Amino acid sequence: MGNILKRIKAPEDLKTLSIEELGILSKEIRRYLVQVLSENGGHLSSNLGVVELTLALHLTFQSPHDKLIWDVGHQSYCHKIITGRKEWFKTIRQYQGMSGYPKRCESEHDIFETGHSSTSLSAALGFVKARQLSKEDYYVVPVIGDGSLTGGIAFEALNNAGRINNSQLIVVLNDNQMSISPNVGGLCKYLDAIRTVPLYTEVKEEVERALKRIPRIGDEVVRTVRDVKSSIKQLLIPGMLFEELGFKYLGPVDGHNIQELITVFNYAKRLHKPVLVHVNTIKGKGLKYAEHNPTKFHGTAPFHIESGKIKSKSKEATYSIVLGQTLKKLGRQNDKLVGITAAMPEGTGLSIFQKSFPERTFDVGIAEQHAVTFAAGLASSGFKPVVAIYSSFLQRAYDQILHDVCLQNLPVIFAIDRAGLVGQDGETHHGIFDISFLNHIPNMTLLAPKNRYELESMLSYAVNYSAPIAIRYPRGKALTDFAEFNQPLSYGKSEILIKGQDVALIAVGSMVKKAVEVASLLKQHENVSCTVINARFIKPIDKERIEQLIKTHQHIVTIEENVLSGGFGHSVLNYVKDKSSKCRVSCIGIEDAFIQHGNITQLYKLCELDSESIYHKVKSILK
Amino acid sequence: MGNILKRIKAPEDLKTLSIEELGILSKEIRRYLVQVLSENGGHLSSNLGVVELTLALHLTFQSPHDKLIWDVGHQSYCHKIITGRKEWFKTIRQYQGMSGYPKRCESEHDIFETGHSSTSLSAALGFVKARQLSKEDYYVVPVIGDGSLTGGIAFEALNNAGRINNSQLIVVLNDNQMSISPNVGGLCKYLDAIRTVPLYTEVKEEVERALKRIPRIGDEVVRTVRDVKSSIKQLLIPGMLFEELGFKYLGPVDGHNIQELITVFNYAKRLHKPVLVHVNTIKGKGLKYAEHNPTKFHGTAPFHIESGKIKSKSKEATYSIVLGQTLKKLGRQNDKLVGITAAMPEGTGLSIFQKSFPERTFDVGIAEQHAVTFAAGLASSGFKPVVAIYSSFLQRAYDQILHDVCLQNLPVIFAIDRAGLVGQDGETHHGIFDISFLNHIPNMTLLAPKNRYELESMLSYAVNYSAPIAIRYPRGKALTDFAEFNQPLSYGKSEILIKGQDVALIAVGSMVKKAVEVASLLKQHENVSCTVINARFIKPIDKERIEQLIKTHQHIVTIEENVLSGGFGHSVLNYVKDKSSKCRVSCIGIEDAFIQHGNITQLYKLCELDSESIYHKVKSILK
Repeated sequence: MGNILKRIKAPEDLKTLSIEELGILSKEIRRYLVQVLSENGGHLSSNLGVVELTLALHLTFQSPHDKLIWDVGHQSYCHKIITGRKEWFKTIRQYQGMSGYPKRCESEHDIFETGHSSTSLSAALGFVKARQLSKEDYYVVPVIGDGSLTGGIAFEALNNAGRINNSQLIVVLNDNQMSISPNVGGLCKYLDAIRTVPLYTEVKEEVERALKRIPRIGDEVVRTVRDVKSSIKQLLIPGMLFEELGFKYLGPVDGHNIQELITVFNYAKRLHKPVLVHVNTIKGKGLKYAEHNPTKFHGTAPFHIESGKIKSKSKEATYSIVLGQTLKKLGRQNDKLVGITAAMPEGTGLSIFQKSFPERTFDVGIAEQHAVTFAAGLASSGFKPVVAIYSSFLQRAYDQILHDVCLQNLPVIFAIDRAGLVGQDGETHHGIFDISFLNHIPNMTLLAPKNRYELESMLSYAVNYSAPIAIRYPRGKALTDFAEFNQPLSYGKSEILIKGQDVALIAVGSMVKKAVEVASLLKQHENVSCTVINARFIKPIDKERIEQLIKTHQHIVTIEENVLSGGFGHSVLNYVKDKSSKCRVSCIGIEDAFIQHGNITQLYKLCELDSESIYHKVKSILK
Repeated sequence: MGNILKRIKAPEDLKTLSIEELGILSKEIRRYLVQVLSENGGHLSSNLGVVELTLALHLTFQSPHDKLIWDVGHQSYCHKIITGRKEWFKTIRQYQGMSGYPKRCESEHDIFETGHSSTSLSAALGFVKARQLSKEDYYVVPVIGDGSLTGGIAFEALNNAGRINNSQLIVVLNDNQMSISPNVGGLCKYLDAIRTVPLYTEVKEEVERALKRIPRIGDEVVRTVRDVKSSIKQLLIPGMLFEELGFKYLGPVDGHNIQELITVFNYAKRLHKPVLVHVNTIKGKGLKYAEHNPTKFHGTAPFHIESGKIKSKSKEATYSIVLGQTLKKLGRQNDKLVGITAAMPEGTGLSIFQKSFPERTFDVGIAEQHAVTFAAGLASSGFKPVVAIYSSFLQRAYDQILHDVCLQNLPVIFAIDRAGLVGQDGETHHGIFDISFLNHIPNMTLLAPKNRYELESMLSYAVNYSAPIAIRYPRGKALTDFAEFNQPLSYGKSEILIKGQDVALIAVGSMVKKAVEVASLLKQHENVSCTVINARFIKPIDKERIEQLIKTHQHIVTIEENVLSGGFGHSVLNYVKDKSSKCRVSCIGIEDAFIQHGNITQLYKLCELDSESIYHKVKSILK
């Protein structure tokens, strides 16, 4: 840790520093970020990009009196470091260590928790109205990326915020020209156009002077109104889109120039209407390989500082890669197959399909709702859209799945990545609700593969299926176990892996392997003979199989990596209750709680979803 | 039915009419709309407002070859009448009659189903991309209201649509200055500013000429850049907000002038970029009392044509009114209580609170996601927000409830109106999923009142509760039955109405009265003695009570007006399974299907949730 950083115990300490010292501090913070994240992994590029911005904010505003709200939250590391948490920061994203996102329990400076994108403006407006009603006096400063701005809720908030006088609302648009991957859409191109324009306030005066001096505007100046409009847009009012909604637009400002940032923020504080300060930052700033490849270092595993190489890079394919490769194969056979992602072409593996079929791949930006209804439109026209979205982010499209896809019974395929526990990103990112929020939607079919081969065959099955269908699979390495169990898929049918007699374990997706391990432990230690079933279909459940099991087993145990309420187990339980009073059903899954961050092994233990814990549970059930 | 209307069997028939005849036809359609809706009830104002617009669209575009997509869908009546369904129209909103929304099974002219707001642009973009990939040739024409445009998904779509060349996408902005209630927000004020400006194409030429003629722009013309900007906004580029996103803006156009509409649509067809045509319409046009009070006649019950008076107006308070009145009372005692609605101050009854506390009431427009996260912001600052939203529309804020409210365990109160079957609005509007999408969210508490007094006490309870809490209650009349059962609420505790011994009926909210009726039928016809429990708390369930019931009853039957999967019954079932193998649990609720429209009595029968059906079910369970 650098010498100046050592002295920073709270934001007030920044005020004792000269501009030169702040420059040195920025470097020290960057070094510290790289050092810790090279060990722990984490969001590197975005945090390197906001070092000066964070310092300038803390120098201009009095946190926590003034309210800094970090949209998405993964860029709050520097904020954490300078708000009294720099030692603790070494534990970031580790089990029982510091969260990678703002957490109210960590510090009074984390005033609102974020994780999913585009929520900061709505929350900020809540603080603004609370302040006005309480007749208090503070600034509310949401910091939102240009990527997050494409999420619909952000626009809903802009629309509500723009006309409030004396709102003391200063929106900082952190424009790094990226979501996780490069941005898309009209807004992005719009920002492109205004990004390079000199500071608005300067320009304003200049143009004013110039206009007064020009003796006549003749044909050579104004050829067509189109030109006027274009030049006006470019020079006079670069932020007109925001101004139209009622904001005062300031910018663009160099996000790595602390002095300039402070000047603009101080100017913004004096205005009596909502302000949007447009700040240009460079993702990965100050670290060559991260600047060069910000997507790769957006969320990174531990890496070697010198080379930027990932320390223990697995050569094994992830489920995301299997998705991409399989879709590529299927895309060759079926020219109606199209892929849709919400700002995650790399993360979901859809980029592999995209390389072969760029015109059939749609990255809609951070806009999950649109992604789903857009897919419904394509499906209505005879296409076969695959919507690849992380489980946790798909939550945002619940209504669109229900109302736009399932109600019309349209053949949209949902590829639900990161279903289950995701590890270090923690409670905002675990995909542990998707079974529960999809299971009760009429017309939906829901599957989960036990291994990579089954994901392949499920995708192939889904492409030939003519109604809404979703496949959920976990983050990380695609299993290759159980390759020998490869019966063709049949609608609503499960698969038997082990035949036994005492207890039947019906496992969903990621839990199939655990079930086999548990069966082995039970055999070995208790001489209990287990039947192990791979559910394959979460909805509908395999009624025929269950009726057989009821006849031959006294116990059925369901195992799923999802909250219990509304999950697979309850569907089985509900079915069995009317069929048998002898066979008992027990459901194993995640209890009714949000789950903290940590590595997957730790979290499985915590949730009692590791083989050992399940084994003990089944043992106690049998007694 | 008028003479010209009689001749219109398909949209082609419109082309044989002169402009004068089209004017007469408009009047005939209006008369027909009023006649049918005065009998059936339905969306009157919005349909009266789009008569000429609908005719002009069908005259300019070739439906179903060109794709007309009606956002929200409740303004598609005129479209239905002229696309071969004018006789059938007499059954609109009636059980097994025509739907009040576009339905693909009704006509090839209904190409995409809508009901919830703001989806049309995303769907349209799906059609655009499908057409481009299939190398077909047709126009895609979503018709979206200014109210719907404030929904986030609409902006997500605009952002994605704006830069697609040759998209043949013509967005019709039907600007009637209203959602259901008057609009709010920056976008609305923005549209206000440009609404009165003459047609853009005319202005463009005029300004061009004028600019060329002006010899010098001196001090008197350009006083400050602010003035320039303002005048530019007003005169030159009224639709700049849309143009910034890549659209060609045309308008505003008089939405009741068929000739002008046709001219502009034909011009729009020749452009090679996405177009937004801004059309001004008057909600309720042509019917004095509807023009005067469009909110009242937005969705109306049957009424007297002469006076506009509702035929059988109940004097009894609805649950919505009870909400408003109770909040008003509570608001006097607690100055931290604030109310939030998403464009439904009247519908939710929040307008009653609003009259007393305008500064503590926030109508955020059609923006359910923002409403919830905005509430989270207010709750973080010590306020007690009541978010009053219809069950079906709350689906859109699922992620915000989970991620922004429950994860932070913030004391937001959800007043879930229209929970259960809603009647004639049908499948897009039934509130039959909320238990299932809230039940599995950690930290959530969920209640349902048996009558109006219990809603009052639940609201009072909620205001003093310090974590997320939701109260669901049905559409319509607030029951006054069972007033004698008024024990104070206690966390997680149910209430006993009838003590019996053979079977325990545990009913949720609206089903309590049915359960009492069923108990009476069972006593009378079968001599079966029922215990009847009012659940009060859906989550958490009353474990103590259930344990008592298990000991004394052989059967527990749960009854809820919600889909079974993930509902209250499954929570009870799951609890009982580990406690008793003797007591059987049966769950009564809505099966896994979307439910059509009809009156409530018909729908209860259809879903077997009327007393008679439940009685038969319980009888068969006991056998």
